[in-house]
Amino acid sequence: MGRLDPGRTIAELRELKELTGDASGAQRVAWTETWRLARNWFEGKVADLGVAAETDEAGNQWVTLAGDSPEAILIGGHLDSVVNGGWLDGCLNVLAGLEVLRGIAAEGRQSRTLRLVSWADEEGSRFGRSLLGSSAAAGDLKPDAVRGLRDQDGEALPEAIQAFGLDVDRMGQSRRRLKDARAYLELHIEQGPVLERLGLPLGVVLGTCGVERHSIRFTGQAAHAGSTPMDMRRDPLAAAARLALAVRDGAKRFGGVATVGRVVTRPGIVTAVAGLCEMTLDQRHLESDELAGMLAEARAVADAIVREEGVQVEWEEVFRIEPIHFHPGLIELCEQAVIEVAGRSHRLPSGPLHDASEVARAGIPTAMLFVQSLNGLSHTKEEDTRPEHLELSVRALDVAVRKALAWVDS
Amino acid sequence: MGRLDPGRTIAELRELKELTGDASGAQRVAWTETWRLARNWFEGKVADLGVAAETDEAGNQWVTLAGDSPEAILIGGHLDSVVNGGWLDGCLNVLAGLEVLRGIAAEGRQSRTLRLVSWADEEGSRFGRSLLGSSAAAGDLKPDAVRGLRDQDGEALPEAIQAFGLDVDRMGQSRRRLKDARAYLELHIEQGPVLERLGLPLGVVLGTCGVERHSIRFTGQAAHAGSTPMDMRRDPLAAAARLALAVRDGAKRFGGVATVGRVVTRPGIVTAVAGLCEMTLDQRHLESDELAGMLAEARAVADAIVREEGVQVEWEEVFRIEPIHFHPGLIELCEQAVIEVAGRSHRLPSGPLHDASEVARAGIPTAMLFVQSLNGLSHTKEEDTRPEHLELSVRALDVAVRKALAWVDS
Repeated sequence: MGRLDPGRTIAELRELKELTGDASGAQRVAWTETWRLARNWFEGKVADLGVAAETDEAGNQWVTLAGDSPEAILIGGHLDSVVNGGWLDGCLNVLAGLEVLRGIAAEGRQSRTLRLVSWADEEGSRFGRSLLGSSAAAGDLKPDAVRGLRDQDGEALPEAIQAFGLDVDRMGQSRRRLKDARAYLELHIEQGPVLERLGLPLGVVLGTCGVERHSIRFTGQAAHAGSTPMDMRRDPLAAAARLALAVRDGAKRFGGVATVGRVVTRPGIVTAVAGLCEMTLDQRHLESDELAGMLAEARAVADAIVREEGVQVEWEEVFRIEPIHFHPGLIELCEQAVIEVAGRSHRLPSGPLHDASEVARAGIPTAMLFVQSLNGLSHTKEEDTRPEHLELSVRALDVAVRKALAWVDS
Repeated sequence: MGRLDPGRTIAELRELKELTGDASGAQRVAWTETWRLARNWFEGKVADLGVAAETDEAGNQWVTLAGDSPEAILIGGHLDSVVNGGWLDGCLNVLAGLEVLRGIAAEGRQSRTLRLVSWADEEGSRFGRSLLGSSAAAGDLKPDAVRGLRDQDGEALPEAIQAFGLDVDRMGQSRRRLKDARAYLELHIEQGPVLERLGLPLGVVLGTCGVERHSIRFTGQAAHAGSTPMDMRRDPLAAAARLALAVRDGAKRFGGVATVGRVVTRPGIVTAVAGLCEMTLDQRHLESDELAGMLAEARAVADAIVREEGVQVEWEEVFRIEPIHFHPGLIELCEQAVIEVAGRSHRLPSGPLHDASEVARAGIPTAMLFVQSLNGLSHTKEEDTRPEHLELSVRALDVAVRKALAWVDS
C-alpha cells in the first residue's frame, strides 16, 4: 500500500504470468478455468485495498474507491488473453490501474469516485466476439447476436458463461455501471512498432481506426496448367494478386492500412490454373471519409480487374466499424501526463480496437495511453516491453488519472 | 470385325464408362479393383480379334498383330484415369487403337507387326508417379525412386502392384517390349482449348513441353493488420503477388505458359499481415532455351522483390523435365492423315506429358494426334468431345497407322 510503486506492477505481472501462462504463452482465455484463476487471483490483490471487487451481469469486475460524489473516473483493462498470448496485453492495464488505486486510496477519500474495471472477454478468443463485456456495459450488445456462438468444441457461449453465473439475456444490465462515469482512461501496450521506431516509451491514442473487413471471392475457370494458353485463361489468382497490390498502394496514398492476410485457391494444385481464389481484406483508417475512399477505390479496381481478366467477383462484408475519436480534452490531458513522466509524447491512432472504443461509443469522454511494444509484437509469447517503459507507463497512468480527477472537478 | 467402325469406338467408350464410372466421373485409378475390371473388360474385347492380350512386367497390356517382320508400329493409350476423371482421357486412345487393329486384322497379315499397348498407370493418381508403365518400358524408371511411394491410406506402391502380380524390381524388364518398335503413335484428347478455338476437330502434336515446377516460399514478418504502418511491413503475400504477375508476363513474352495454382499464407488470418507465403510455380515451354529463360527471369524478379520488400525467398524444385520433340517425319505423316479425314490440321505443343513422351525419350520415332476437347476440360466428369470429332479421330488414327506402316516399309 501507500506510495505508487510501479516495480510492484511488474512483479505482479510476472506473478500472473507464472500462475496462468505456460511455455507457449499466456492462456487466460475468457470463460476458461485459467481465466477464472486469474480473476480470483486479482480479487485477492484487490482485497488488500480494503474494498471488495464486484462482478457485474456481463462478468466485468469492478473495484470502487468511493468518493464524495458518485461521479466517477474509470480506469479499464482486461485479464483475458488470446491462446498463446503475451504477458502484458490487457493485464498491464488492470494491474497498473490497481497500483494507481492503491496510491490514491492511501491518500484518503477523494471528492470523486475512482473505479477500476477489468472487462470480461476483450479478446473474443474462444467465441470470436471481442469486446464482449465492455460492449454489454456500453449498451451495444445484442443477445441474439451472440446466443448462437460456439467454440471449436461446439460448446455454446450461453453455456460457457453460465458456468460463471451469467445469463446472456441479463448481460445488458451491466449498462448501469457506466451511469455515473465522467471519464475513462486505459493504458495499453501499443502492439505495433511506431513508438519503438520513434524511440519513445509512451504515446497518446487519438482514437481507434474504423475497419472495413471483407471476404472477396474471384471466380474464373479452373484449367490445365500445361494445355491452356496464357491468352485463354481466366485466372482468379492473378486477379487477386492485382487487387492485393492495388489495395496496398491505396492504403499508402490514403494514409491508412490495408491487409490481405489470407489467400486460398481452389483446386489449389500446382498443375491447374485456379478456378476460385478467395482473399481477405482488412482496411483501417481513423477518418471515416478516408476509409470509405479506400474501400470505394478497392471496389472500383476490382471491377476493372473483372473486366480485364474475364473473372467474376463477389464481396462479402465480414465486419465493419466506424472510426472512434477519443475526447480532445482527455487526449490533451494524457499528453501532458506523458510529457511529465517521459519528456516527450506522440499522438497516434490505434489500429486495433480496445474496450475504450466501446466506452467512447457510449458517450463517455475517453482516452488511452500506449506504451512501447518491442518489435511491435503482440498476441504471442514474444510480446514484451522494457521494464523501465512499463514503470513509466504506470507513472503516466497515475498522473493522467489525477489530472482527470481534477478535470472532472473543474 | 471387318471395316473400320468409329461408331463402335464411341459405343465401347460408353460401355466402359457405365462399367467403371459413377456419378462423379471415371474411377479407373491404376492399381484398384475398378481398374482391374477395366483391364479384364478390355481383354475380353481383344479376344474377339483372335489374339490374346499379354501383360508385361510393368503391368502394360500388349495386343500384337504379328507381321512378316518383327519390326513394329505401336499404338498406345491408357485405361487408367484420375479420381473423378473423364470418359475419354487415355481410353479413347486404347479403344481407337483396338478399332484400327480390327480393321487391319481383317485385311490379313501385314509385312510389319502392329501392336497396341495399354500403358499401366499413366496418371499416377494414387501414388503420385505418372507415366509409370511407359517409363518402365522406356528404361527410365528407377525402382528406388518409387519403392517408398505410398497412397493416402499409407499403402505402399510395391504392395499395391504385387496384387497385380508385379514386382518393382522387375518392372524394368518390360523394356524388351520396345526392342523392335520402329514408330509409336498416340491419339489423345487435347485437354485444352486450342483446337476448339480454331474450330478444328484434329491437330498434330509437336512434342511435349519441358516443365519447371517449383515451390517458392517467401518469409516476411507476421504483424498486426491494424497496428503496423504500411511502410514498416515485410509482407510475403505482396511479394508472392508481384512474382505471380511477373511470371505471367514472362510466359506471354516467351511464348510459353506459367501457372501459380496454389498460394498458402501463414498464419493466414484476416487480422494479420502474413509471416509466410508459399506459392507453386509451373512453367512450360516446348523449347528448352526459352524455358530456361523463363525460369531465370522469374528468379531474377524474385531476387529484386526480396530486396524491395525486405522479405526472404527460398526455391524448392518439385519436378523438372526437358522438352521432348516428336519425330518430324511422323509429324508430317500425321498431318497428312488429319488433312485427309478433316480437311485442315494444326500443329501444337502439348503442355501435359503423355506416355508418348517416354517412348520418344527411348529413341523411338513418335508422334501424337489431338482431337478437340469441349471447353478445354479434362480430369473431370465434364470432359467431353463431340461424337463426330471422336469418329474423325478414329479415322485419322487409322490413316496415320497405315501411313506409318508404309513409312517403316519404305
